[in-house]
Amino acid sequence: MYFASDNTAPISPEILEAIASASQGHAGSYGADPLTEKLTERAREIFETDLAIYPIGTGTAANALALATIVHPYGAVICADEAHIATDECGAPEFYMAGAKLITLPSPDGRITPMQIETAMARAIDGGVHHVLPEAVSITQATEWGTVYAQAQIAEIGQASRRRGLHLHMDGARFANALVHTGATPAELTWKSGIDVLSFGATKNGAMAAEAVVFFNPALAAGFERRRKRAGQLWSKMRFLSAQLHAYLENDLWLTNAAHANRMASRLADGLAALPSVRLMQPVQANEIFAAMPEDMIESLLAEGAVFYRWIEVPGEENPVVRLVTSFATTPHDVEGFLSLATRHAAALTS
Amino acid sequence: MYFASDNTAPISPEILEAIASASQGHAGSYGADPLTEKLTERAREIFETDLAIYPIGTGTAANALALATIVHPYGAVICADEAHIATDECGAPEFYMAGAKLITLPSPDGRITPMQIETAMARAIDGGVHHVLPEAVSITQATEWGTVYAQAQIAEIGQASRRRGLHLHMDGARFANALVHTGATPAELTWKSGIDVLSFGATKNGAMAAEAVVFFNPALAAGFERRRKRAGQLWSKMRFLSAQLHAYLENDLWLTNAAHANRMASRLADGLAALPSVRLMQPVQANEIFAAMPEDMIESLLAEGAVFYRWIEVPGEENPVVRLVTSFATTPHDVEGFLSLATRHAAALTS
Amino acid sequence: MYFASDNTAPISPEILEAIASASQGHAGSYGADPLTEKLTERAREIFETDLAIYPIGTGTAANALALATIVHPYGAVICADEAHIATDECGAPEFYMAGAKLITLPSPDGRITPMQIETAMARAIDGGVHHVLPEAVSITQATEWGTVYAQAQIAEIGQASRRRGLHLHMDGARFANALVHTGATPAELTWKSGIDVLSFGATKNGAMAAEAVVFFNPALAAGFERRRKRAGQLWSKMRFLSAQLHAYLENDLWLTNAAHANRMASRLADGLAALPSVRLMQPVQANEIFAAMPEDMIESLLAEGAVFYRWIEVPGEENPVVRLVTSFATTPHDVEGFLSLATRHAAALTS
Amino acid sequence: MYFASDNTAPISPEILEAIASASQGHAGSYGADPLTEKLTERAREIFETDLAIYPIGTGTAANALALATIVHPYGAVICADEAHIATDECGAPEFYMAGAKLITLPSPDGRITPMQIETAMARAIDGGVHHVLPEAVSITQATEWGTVYAQAQIAEIGQASRRRGLHLHMDGARFANALVHTGATPAELTWKSGIDVLSFGATKNGAMAAEAVVFFNPALAAGFERRRKRAGQLWSKMRFLSAQLHAYLENDLWLTNAAHANRMASRLADGLAALPSVRLMQPVQANEIFAAMPEDMIESLLAEGAVFYRWIEVPGEENPVVRLVTSFATTPHDVEGFLSLATRHAAALTS
Repeated sequence: MYFASDNTAPISPEILEAIASASQGHAGSYGADPLTEKLTERAREIFETDLAIYPIGTGTAANALALATIVHPYGAVICADEAHIATDECGAPEFYMAGAKLITLPSPDGRITPMQIETAMARAIDGGVHHVLPEAVSITQATEWGTVYAQAQIAEIGQASRRRGLHLHMDGARFANALVHTGATPAELTWKSGIDVLSFGATKNGAMAAEAVVFFNPALAAGFERRRKRAGQLWSKMRFLSAQLHAYLENDLWLTNAAHANRMASRLADGLAALPSVRLMQPVQANEIFAAMPEDMIESLLAEGAVFYRWIEVPGEENPVVRLVTSFATTPHDVEGFLSLATRHAAALTS
Repeated sequence: MYFASDNTAPISPEILEAIASASQGHAGSYGADPLTEKLTERAREIFETDLAIYPIGTGTAANALALATIVHPYGAVICADEAHIATDECGAPEFYMAGAKLITLPSPDGRITPMQIETAMARAIDGGVHHVLPEAVSITQATEWGTVYAQAQIAEIGQASRRRGLHLHMDGARFANALVHTGATPAELTWKSGIDVLSFGATKNGAMAAEAVVFFNPALAAGFERRRKRAGQLWSKMRFLSAQLHAYLENDLWLTNAAHANRMASRLADGLAALPSVRLMQPVQANEIFAAMPEDMIESLLAEGAVFYRWIEVPGEENPVVRLVTSFATTPHDVEGFLSLATRHAAALTS
Repeated sequence: MYFASDNTAPISPEILEAIASASQGHAGSYGADPLTEKLTERAREIFETDLAIYPIGTGTAANALALATIVHPYGAVICADEAHIATDECGAPEFYMAGAKLITLPSPDGRITPMQIETAMARAIDGGVHHVLPEAVSITQATEWGTVYAQAQIAEIGQASRRRGLHLHMDGARFANALVHTGATPAELTWKSGIDVLSFGATKNGAMAAEAVVFFNPALAAGFERRRKRAGQLWSKMRFLSAQLHAYLENDLWLTNAAHANRMASRLADGLAALPSVRLMQPVQANEIFAAMPEDMIESLLAEGAVFYRWIEVPGEENPVVRLVTSFATTPHDVEGFLSLATRHAAALTS
Repeated sequence: MYFASDNTAPISPEILEAIASASQGHAGSYGADPLTEKLTERAREIFETDLAIYPIGTGTAANALALATIVHPYGAVICADEAHIATDECGAPEFYMAGAKLITLPSPDGRITPMQIETAMARAIDGGVHHVLPEAVSITQATEWGTVYAQAQIAEIGQASRRRGLHLHMDGARFANALVHTGATPAELTWKSGIDVLSFGATKNGAMAAEAVVFFNPALAAGFERRRKRAGQLWSKMRFLSAQLHAYLENDLWLTNAAHANRMASRLADGLAALPSVRLMQPVQANEIFAAMPEDMIESLLAEGAVFYRWIEVPGEENPVVRLVTSFATTPHDVEGFLSLATRHAAALTS
């Protein structure tokens, strides 16, 4: 019953197999290998456009590199207050951007709105040279609260950003989970809605360590390769990074894995929502569940071996909130086991 | 006949196997897994001391993180002019150190001397606040010219550094190759000779993507974990980085692989040295050979499928210089094949 | 009727005279001159303690250098959301700190509390290596809302900071105005209450361009001189920076100037408070007044030549808010002139 | 007999007077004042072109800001090995450029050549993404060895730079001294010869603390104002910086001062050259003299009150080298006094 995070899962077997297959003979290093080339082709097919794709080992690096490429050191990125880039990357964006700032907007469900962006921009501009210059917006898909931006919402943000000359970045650590939820195409959820740069995640959805930065306007990527190198993010044996991403995109593995994780989350959420003592904080649209439940219940679940994290306090909610995350490796057995424990405790509480 | 670099080799089978074995069930992320713990224990045994070891995905990141931890932004690192950190990392040290500088010393064979360090230090100090403050020395073992520091040489540098309050870093991207050459123990080549921090390489010697920063004085590592995180160098599925390093150190795999690579280099060097038209630029002590040979010969070898790089021009040498690198995956067949081609071309030249 | 800012004022005559006097013959550069030495002595007398004082040309640089000296690049500074360092320095602290972050706390009157600091610290620590590490607290005295921390309030913040191992910085751009308001001694308002580092402002209170960073624990200042140099903040003809600060502290000029500015602000505030259509947003404790007044009134005042800025919107306040700042150069005539205009407009509005 | 540096001189009386004159009444801050506007007009007249000029307090900041504006963090600047930016600014360029590097070229007389630039560029490009990308060349006029680039030399460097897509920066800390020596116009020595950005110095030639960054192509200056602000280099009472520069350019004060300094240097150099025991290391073309002389002579001169610095060792020169700098404030009496002492000692040595 491991719901702590999707990064506690092992490697998807297909991806492990691809790593082994790639380990045959010599190959050019630093990306001069056939697999890296094939990855670019595959990505262009999937996103139905010309693009530049750069494999990266971690999601934090992908985000930080993407932002540093589109924002000057005297600039700023507008994002949600609970954005991963703002709270969980130990200042990586600020480090990579050489001190540029994040301007965070309050967001109860993880999403930000065009109006908020407009207001933040207006205030920043009003400050003249005394204030950092917003040059980009970053949204997370799926969000840190497990919700998903609909295509129309992204398109509105895209328009608001364009109006103000802001680049639009998407932190897609769980892009596949969002994609599966919406039913839109990869192109629709990204460049067709105004996304300029995507941090494309695979690690949480089955890879060992594999993300990519995708520029839909390759001209924006100027200098990216040297930025990646000086960040220590250029793998010498790059083929093993590309092999993971290529396998991830082959035979719809990414969609299959994400659909499974979402299904498990959905089932878990439905079960929990039926319990009188549990309250879901957000609609469950991807593979994360945020649920308020009595302290006693949390402690009992943990004591019986369920693994998950407490989350931040939510104003107005009397019970503590926990986060449950499913993955491609979550089994129906895990879900039923957890629900059965939870049901028993809920009954005990109300009896 | 692939002698372009040791990073064009595949994954050592034992390490690939270890990755597969680690991919069983869930495990704590970001290093909270049993393999990472076992790695620390194993490293302590091998180096015969208490130490802190941090797995990292690339060698450039390992160097840059190590240096940033021991040097202030207003500081400097003294190193050889052809040091990897100075010429091949696209400014990664300067980026991670927030602008601190490298002070490079001329070195025809890749090694620097205590006297050079002393002179550089004296000049820097003489500049007062107008000059960056050297706070560390970095040496490469084996060096970028394929030579190896003897233990006594390191110990002298260690003493010179300590006298001046300088920390001593070793870029050990090819540490195993140097170790095997010297016959010294890992402890003797490092902390017993004054090394404070080691970038411990495994990728070039059989791993997929695995290096480590080793602090022999754990107190020096203060803040390292946050530095690693904000650099985007903390793998979420850390067990797969630790698994590589653990397998690398098990059953002397690292020594076996390095000994093989060195042997292949030695055989290749002997064969080339016997040719009248070829001149070895340096004694071959690890797995790299730098050889001057006529342009015609280089072109013929490349045309017949040998893969290797031309190197920088060496003043006073009339012929171009090439670099040949062997690895755990180099076969005697490769070596013989190359020598046989070279011999034929040498004969053609002199006939 | 110039109330736009205290930095629109000219140079205090005594300070201009000191610059002229210092311009006699040759003197050692970069601080090796007698005036710089005398300044240190004078500052030690005034603050009744050993200290290190470094003259700096601008307040933004003083703040940024002070913070960079006490916070690592992976660290953070806790401050008020409207702190000058957060909103008006275009990211200077982040630049100088190499990417460290500001953690901002909501503060309706410019002051932050020990409880807020404690909560922010607890949350940061809870995030482990994924979160930047708070290493300092920064408070502004007088605050950006024209209020003044009482000595006891600073002491409580000092204790809360010390308990958590946080250094305590004071942005004293208007330190003299605060000092005069409280009647405390310079020592009481700073190191006796737990301040480790002070940005000591003089420019807004009569200097041409002169601030100083004061370390009450000189050991904390390690590396400061090189930081100042590499920031391009070390004046070659330093005597002219020291001359300003020395004159500022001679014959109580700083207190006289601040007392005058405060008196002018107080008179202006009293006059405005008496008008039915004007509401003071904060008690006026230093030389800044924040007043809500009808849009018509603002436009009329501006049209008749009064110079001042509109401020940020204040939630719950229907009228716009303006800021009025007095200085050593504000005359009773200016104040009376402004009040007379305001009174006329207020009468027009209510008639 | 103060020959330590031109920054040990006081303020030129005309400039001191301008500061006093500017200190009348209120004025807009941060550059919104009439003097700053007038300065731009005057600079355009003098350089005979449209340009953007930004006043800055120190030369180190001017250089660092200029370079950071035209070089990416993954880039590099090509310069002489003894360039001020390389040896005397404690890493300011690297700090401001967020880690970009300097590529230094050996230069016995302070000047670099188009061929050296070409070679450095070729090697850098050959390193691909593993090597920083040169994006600018920086030359010093007059050089750190007191020599002056002729207009034709600058023009050749300008062409070499343009061919390689490199911006061309001039560190003009002693621009006036060079200008006077060449007899060229300001335009000829800068943009007409390919200079894109000039660090225009005034402090060493009579100002209190005043330099400027001049962009001859204003489009290159994008973002400069925010860079200046976040560097803490934007004076709030900017009029006092502009006043200095404006007075500097009025009535040819800058040329008069520089011509005087050059004349004093020339006279001093001629006198020294006539002594058998003294050897001038370089032709004296501006206001700096580098002279080798016997250790005994140096000690005697210092003992009798002459103030000057010993310089770095020059290979092949048996005697130590000293630097003597003249300024607008150097008197013929100083020069004669020094020469008379030197002559006496030279006689003593040879007798």
